[in-house]
Amino acid sequence: MAQVSVSSAAQAVIGDSEFDRDTTVTRREPGVYDIDLSAGWTIINAVNGGYLLAVLGRALGDALPHSDPFTISAHYLTASHPGPAVIRTDVVRTGRTLSTGQASLFQYDDEGAEVERIRVLASYGDLDALPDDVRTSAKPPHFPPVEQCFGAQDGPSPVQGSSAITERLDLKLDPTTLGWALGSPSGKGEMRAWFGLADGRDADPLSLLLAVDALPPTAFEMGLKGWVPTVELTVHVRCRPAPGPLRVSITTRNLAGGFLEEDAEVWDSADRLVAQSRQLARAKLS
Amino acid sequence: MAQVSVSSAAQAVIGDSEFDRDTTVTRREPGVYDIDLSAGWTIINAVNGGYLLAVLGRALGDALPHSDPFTISAHYLTASHPGPAVIRTDVVRTGRTLSTGQASLFQYDDEGAEVERIRVLASYGDLDALPDDVRTSAKPPHFPPVEQCFGAQDGPSPVQGSSAITERLDLKLDPTTLGWALGSPSGKGEMRAWFGLADGRDADPLSLLLAVDALPPTAFEMGLKGWVPTVELTVHVRCRPAPGPLRVSITTRNLAGGFLEEDAEVWDSADRLVAQSRQLARAKLS
Repeated sequence: MAQVSVSSAAQAVIGDSEFDRDTTVTRREPGVYDIDLSAGWTIINAVNGGYLLAVLGRALGDALPHSDPFTISAHYLTASHPGPAVIRTDVVRTGRTLSTGQASLFQYDDEGAEVERIRVLASYGDLDALPDDVRTSAKPPHFPPVEQCFGAQDGPSPVQGSSAITERLDLKLDPTTLGWALGSPSGKGEMRAWFGLADGRDADPLSLLLAVDALPPTAFEMGLKGWVPTVELTVHVRCRPAPGPLRVSITTRNLAGGFLEEDAEVWDSADRLVAQSRQLARAKLS
Repeated sequence: MAQVSVSSAAQAVIGDSEFDRDTTVTRREPGVYDIDLSAGWTIINAVNGGYLLAVLGRALGDALPHSDPFTISAHYLTASHPGPAVIRTDVVRTGRTLSTGQASLFQYDDEGAEVERIRVLASYGDLDALPDDVRTSAKPPHFPPVEQCFGAQDGPSPVQGSSAITERLDLKLDPTTLGWALGSPSGKGEMRAWFGLADGRDADPLSLLLAVDALPPTAFEMGLKGWVPTVELTVHVRCRPAPGPLRVSITTRNLAGGFLEEDAEVWDSADRLVAQSRQLARAKLS
């Protein structure tokens, strides 16, 4: 695969890209969608939680009268695997500016019975209908230029446990949050990266659902080595992202009792805060 | 009603207090609960969203095999009013350490048909079973001593639109976030208060669901005057709170496009971060 920098010109376009093809849901009947979960978005053997959220978000965008996720909350129940899945949606309420829906993703056990993987509640609207008023005090976090950041192709496995998803993403990690990959984690719960899709597709609200959960866990920089499964993840999409690379900054302040939160913020090339998320995850304290 | 300071000795106890009586749900049949929403927790004419979340949280704690909310996400659909309501719960998954459930609260229209007010997804566990390990970098925000903070009884309506809920709470607002009440908001999206229940009942995981949504909106300190209805609210309960007053700090960084987030953190008397929450709310930009 060609190495595409987050700073290079776009190649694939929204609607015709790996991400779009791999999140395609097929309506079986009203409110019910089939999908074949792609093996291309796995980390170790599990399907990435952000990719799954985008899949569910896409089904809800079809089922609801509004197309943009404003706030979506997912509870992860069992681990998803590549292969067939069905999404069942429920329209909870439709309003003039916001609609609320629910969706569950199921896979199949050995007897073919449905096993629920994820359940989400979400409110959708139209990002383009929002007024332009901005009174934000949020400032983009400091990021080194992308040329000074490091991706999976920049050395001998800087990203441990390299998996299929690393080939779909153009992640360039801030070297100050990369100590874990060199055996000397900073001890701080911080992870930052320039984020793009490897085929150059620009960001849209659906791909923001992927972006918030696509970096290595902050727990790695806190010196933990085990996996950090998500219990719950809520994303607020605040603005349609401008073309160009995203900056994703994730912070953990409170690792306690075997759980930690991961707060993500995503900034677009126009310096706007386009998404905020928080997840509760389990950590193995070592 | 006697004025009870957050720093005074407790009077009511957990299980026998205004909050406990007003959140009592009665099982009609397995998974279905009746409640009479109390007029005591209204703000203007609407029932407070934190009180409603505690009501739903209590029903789920009965329906699920685990009793403590670890993470609960609520989407607010229509405004609730004092009076009868029914809660319908659904056990999504039960596990050894976590169980996930869903609940909806309905009231009735003029024809007696059910109208959904709120839908929640939540994962429950046992806070007392968590290991003691803490590797937190979170520090309590600076709070003036409670004697230097201001409550509803400390002046001519320092809390505008005083409502029934102010009599149930012992809120003492940090004077640096009280400018709005004096006609000179700071412009910063910050609100901080010492929080207690007026009858002296100590905090527990359920009352934390109330505490995160009980302060005046940060939007007031940003110079907005209209109401700020919650679209979605997610709470993570991280630790069983110690007896004594709580400190609640709420921050808004991004007011844009007519929406804003409110991030709350709740600290107990033992200086532990016991709850984190984020809500997405609508703001009328003026």
